[in-house]
Amino acid sequence: MRWVLPDHIQDALPSEADKLEGLRRKLLDAFRLRGYQQVMPPLLEYLDSLTTGAGRDLRLRTYQLVDQLSGRTMGVRADMTPQVTRIDSHLLNRQGVTRLCYCGSVLHTLPSTLTATREPLQLGAELYGHAGMEADIEVLRLLAEVMRLADVPATRIDIGHVGLFHALAGRAGLVPGREEMLFDLLQSKDVPGLREMLVDVAEPVRSALLMLPELYGGPEVIELAAARLPKDAEIAAALDDLRQLAVALADLPISFDLADLRGYHYHSGVVFAAYGGGSPAALALGGRYDRVAEAFGRARPATGFSLDLRELALRLPDPEAIGAILAPHAQDAALLTEIAVLREQGEIVVTTLPGHDGTWNEAGCDRQLVMRGGRWTVEPLQGE
Amino acid sequence: MRWVLPDHIQDALPSEADKLEGLRRKLLDAFRLRGYQQVMPPLLEYLDSLTTGAGRDLRLRTYQLVDQLSGRTMGVRADMTPQVTRIDSHLLNRQGVTRLCYCGSVLHTLPSTLTATREPLQLGAELYGHAGMEADIEVLRLLAEVMRLADVPATRIDIGHVGLFHALAGRAGLVPGREEMLFDLLQSKDVPGLREMLVDVAEPVRSALLMLPELYGGPEVIELAAARLPKDAEIAAALDDLRQLAVALADLPISFDLADLRGYHYHSGVVFAAYGGGSPAALALGGRYDRVAEAFGRARPATGFSLDLRELALRLPDPEAIGAILAPHAQDAALLTEIAVLREQGEIVVTTLPGHDGTWNEAGCDRQLVMRGGRWTVEPLQGE
Repeated sequence: MRWVLPDHIQDALPSEADKLEGLRRKLLDAFRLRGYQQVMPPLLEYLDSLTTGAGRDLRLRTYQLVDQLSGRTMGVRADMTPQVTRIDSHLLNRQGVTRLCYCGSVLHTLPSTLTATREPLQLGAELYGHAGMEADIEVLRLLAEVMRLADVPATRIDIGHVGLFHALAGRAGLVPGREEMLFDLLQSKDVPGLREMLVDVAEPVRSALLMLPELYGGPEVIELAAARLPKDAEIAAALDDLRQLAVALADLPISFDLADLRGYHYHSGVVFAAYGGGSPAALALGGRYDRVAEAFGRARPATGFSLDLRELALRLPDPEAIGAILAPHAQDAALLTEIAVLREQGEIVVTTLPGHDGTWNEAGCDRQLVMRGGRWTVEPLQGE
Repeated sequence: MRWVLPDHIQDALPSEADKLEGLRRKLLDAFRLRGYQQVMPPLLEYLDSLTTGAGRDLRLRTYQLVDQLSGRTMGVRADMTPQVTRIDSHLLNRQGVTRLCYCGSVLHTLPSTLTATREPLQLGAELYGHAGMEADIEVLRLLAEVMRLADVPATRIDIGHVGLFHALAGRAGLVPGREEMLFDLLQSKDVPGLREMLVDVAEPVRSALLMLPELYGGPEVIELAAARLPKDAEIAAALDDLRQLAVALADLPISFDLADLRGYHYHSGVVFAAYGGGSPAALALGGRYDRVAEAFGRARPATGFSLDLRELALRLPDPEAIGAILAPHAQDAALLTEIAVLREQGEIVVTTLPGHDGTWNEAGCDRQLVMRGGRWTVEPLQGE
């Protein structure tokens, strides 16, 4: 059984590969026309670089390998965003706003859900060098545009803000390990677990943390939070950010989820998750992550999003098969010219090979090139 | 120094990434129009599958990982050809001729030369289900066409035939370990080493093996070999194959190298190596490998080639930069329409972000969209 693949690993056969290739090109082209320049970071890096600023989750997801040249531990990338941040910080080294995009495979040691792949085809766009909400707005609009172009329009974009959690966790005075536990409980909206964990935390922080999972809905949630959460400069700033988004993106299907803390622990401001195509899981994740570049030694604001093209492709109907034209193997000049002309016109022309008549439907042929009255003519392929 | 990459591993920054993306599309499109259907095998497989039929070289080049789900040893692909063969054998399961193509990254534990990358971007085409020379001829013509399309035309295509080595090694009666040594000595054309190794081998096989490294040149080499090599059915058949190629491909810059035994020990018939762009190393390798599918449990003839897109891209001049147009951030409807129209026309339009004037040359802008007499107009971008 040498042809069996590991669980959560799969081939893309021609019809799926066509969808993935089509999406890849369409979305990279859209990025390009908006000034997002493509980069291709490597599959392998030293583990320290791959997980810089990104926290323990990413490290656990990353396959580790020993470099036979240096003896150091390398990893196979599990997320391209820190790589692109490294490129912005240290290779391009620009002073102004830099827009980058990418598309490539990443590997995860374990699938993130029961049905997830361990080899997502990650596509994303990142905007560096601008700390203002205008950058977050641009990136959120770009995400909505990309999903529309992919024919899997966003039916809901949930927006949260890590600043709320950060301010409240800081006031709760938790040790770092406990803060991660709190993060996990909030992320899973485990209110009983939260109650138990927060039993020793003083008011009003305790009530505020318990309230976060309920702060979900339209823009009114922001004002509810402003009224109910403790007065605090960081909280006020976070709510102001969200107010700006509510106004600027009123035409998009946005909602606010103030307990949402998406990403790999590296986000620092607005975070968001886009849903569509009937998927229960988010199809795209993104947000602001100003602290990652800092971990690379050069503070640069950053915001962006990424998605798994395989998840989008799954939600697309099979494209109408473009039938191919079968041409004889004979090598006369008129035939070769005719074949070249048809290919110029975008037709797929498959040539027969001696001894293989009658097996071309499976290769996608529905027409054939035959000589009629001294001319090469395209006709339907007779049932084989 | 968290931004330093391992040796023989590199990023592709925007100008190189553009070249790679352009080549990728152009060559996959050429394959597609010729009936080669794209497949995307996974980065990870069980090690046994990845190295089926492919010999020890490939296994040594392959990074190994433990699957946390099954406990079995997996590998990161070092070559996509056996994967595509697996797809043809067991997934598509077609009876007739099947043409497949692919483009993806592979990883090598060690670089193959002092300057080689450990992460080639492998692109290739494979033809399954046809044992005749017509298939090899098609694949060799396709290789020449692909190099021409990539603007790195083949200046020399060396052709050999594994059948000659196979017949002579069989007659020499070497134990398997010694056969591999002989293979390596021939591959490196180490004549003193060959003499030493063959001291106990009987004539005429000894002289024939020693002669192989000299059998290099035009089609006359084939007749020289026919006259000098021992009379043997396998040798005669191999020389007949080469004669057919010499006739059918007379318009290509082919030469014959009868000691050439390219590939990962999995070839079984004609083998070839294409040179160009001033590179001392071959830019593309290919040949017939009928025994690999057999190792997957379904005997199917196979022939094809692959190349590293990074090596091709290195040999291309930087494309003329297509300058971008800088547009103001203001959100009025006429401006947004104008930007959309320019992008429809293929122009890259970058919008400014508040507080970031004067830093747009580095983002590739050479023109700007400005309001003149009530209309949005494209003008040269003033020196910043």
